[in-house]
Amino acid sequence: MRNADIWVGIDWGTSNVRAWTFAPSGELLASAQSQRGMASLSKADYPTTLSQLLDDLHAPSLTAQAPIVACGMIGARQGWKEAPYLDLPANLERLGQNATQIEESGGLPPVHILPGIACHTAGSEDVMRGEETQLLGLLRFYPDFAGWVCLPGTHSKWANVQDGQLLGFSTFMTGELFETLSSHTILRHSMPDPERKTDEEAGISEGLEQGLQHPEDVTRQLFKVRAATLVAGKSSNWARGFLSGLLIGTEIGAIAPELSRQPVPIIGAPSLQRLYAEGLARKGLQSITIDATEATIAGLKAAREQIS
Amino acid sequence: MRNADIWVGIDWGTSNVRAWTFAPSGELLASAQSQRGMASLSKADYPTTLSQLLDDLHAPSLTAQAPIVACGMIGARQGWKEAPYLDLPANLERLGQNATQIEESGGLPPVHILPGIACHTAGSEDVMRGEETQLLGLLRFYPDFAGWVCLPGTHSKWANVQDGQLLGFSTFMTGELFETLSSHTILRHSMPDPERKTDEEAGISEGLEQGLQHPEDVTRQLFKVRAATLVAGKSSNWARGFLSGLLIGTEIGAIAPELSRQPVPIIGAPSLQRLYAEGLARKGLQSITIDATEATIAGLKAAREQIS
Repeated sequence: MRNADIWVGIDWGTSNVRAWTFAPSGELLASAQSQRGMASLSKADYPTTLSQLLDDLHAPSLTAQAPIVACGMIGARQGWKEAPYLDLPANLERLGQNATQIEESGGLPPVHILPGIACHTAGSEDVMRGEETQLLGLLRFYPDFAGWVCLPGTHSKWANVQDGQLLGFSTFMTGELFETLSSHTILRHSMPDPERKTDEEAGISEGLEQGLQHPEDVTRQLFKVRAATLVAGKSSNWARGFLSGLLIGTEIGAIAPELSRQPVPIIGAPSLQRLYAEGLARKGLQSITIDATEATIAGLKAAREQIS
Repeated sequence: MRNADIWVGIDWGTSNVRAWTFAPSGELLASAQSQRGMASLSKADYPTTLSQLLDDLHAPSLTAQAPIVACGMIGARQGWKEAPYLDLPANLERLGQNATQIEESGGLPPVHILPGIACHTAGSEDVMRGEETQLLGLLRFYPDFAGWVCLPGTHSKWANVQDGQLLGFSTFMTGELFETLSSHTILRHSMPDPERKTDEEAGISEGLEQGLQHPEDVTRQLFKVRAATLVAGKSSNWARGFLSGLLIGTEIGAIAPELSRQPVPIIGAPSLQRLYAEGLARKGLQSITIDATEATIAGLKAAREQIS
């Protein structure tokens, strides 16, 4: 890849896409995003969607020497083209070299899809797509980083990184559980207008403590979200906070015995970073917050340098 | 209440209604059911729905001396009329005496709605409506019963009964979690046609063991349902079984430290009784299966005798 060309990096997730144009020097020239994530696309939709993104980035004239580097669900079996998983232990410094190239992309510049990472160990099967790129980005901010990283979200990941390698990781369905339980179960009757926040902090704090202390009790405590509004006069804002705190506390309570004592980088949205930092602090663990978009961009830049 | 009259018992739940006509001797004369549970009805819909049920039971000519005894969500705040909860400890032998009467029911015989039971203890808030009637029924089968009872279902209950009193209980959202996770999350992609059962038993067994041993790990293990189909070649039948076993195992794993060593009556559907009995057995606990409908009918009969 010629370093003299501008290039495009893309984080193509399940529900949305974000894309950036970079100068050869690494300077960010333009950004674009859309709701056309993997879940809304068939394979045949990708070239048109990508063309639109390149138009939005004012980068329609990219050449074959200015490839596109993409991470995330674009490489899933249901994405544009399956980019096979790397196995554990996975060398994060070789994501770019293991990219899968789209060769026929309807006249578009070549697209390099970064691999996800899978754990095949019986009983610990797990997969990630996208977070590996953020972990590579983390190594650009902290080149000698060794330890556990928290990536909270729809499917929260905890990753163990040493010597530029991903040694192991675990996924918790925390974010998706919160959304699904709030929308599709009896708990929806206890959920407030999300604009109103009174009592929510108290609920978060109580839920967090409950989950941290007794992660084994989560499926019983879930019903308490409902019962406490029925018989204890708890507000729906409290209930929403309790549910959120309970699920995050349960996650941290379950993973905590595996963590080392050193500060945990939290790569995610600021609202989640705050809650996870609080949960870790209650377990006596420090944390470092890292902006998720910055980590993704740093990872895409690093992966692009790995593509020959 | 004159014992010379036939009478009607009703179990009016969230999603359906079942009703029975009984002779003065207690003999079952007729039964009827419909899908018109609380969730599908406004308060104004109840008299018409009840009339239809009485027609279906061939019991339209009930008189004021032949009341109707009903349990379940009909007494919820969103039901026909709120039947206030009894507090813990609750005397099961006084359910009938604490019934709430519908006085204006559009020319229909009087309807006695049995109370639910609530726990107001801070941190253990909980509610039941319907299961209290099954527990009263249990006391007709085992008059001296003392110990823990398992009532698996959408919202599984574990109840501690001594000397005719309900001393405490806990609800787990197990059944609703299974339905919601199977239908509304990423795990739906791993769910099979429910008609096909290959591999399901293996999945159930592995999930049950995982939940029993590590209930604290449930929100991590949920994602394994997905990952194991992606990277370990597990079938969707295995995944469905694992999810079911995991949630039931987690429930039993969390409650087990509170149980006594004596046999646990399981009041529920046969398919669930089998799985809960297996889970209890793996914890070294025996169980007794009791048909849920028989328990409800015995409870309604006992409550009717309590109504003066």
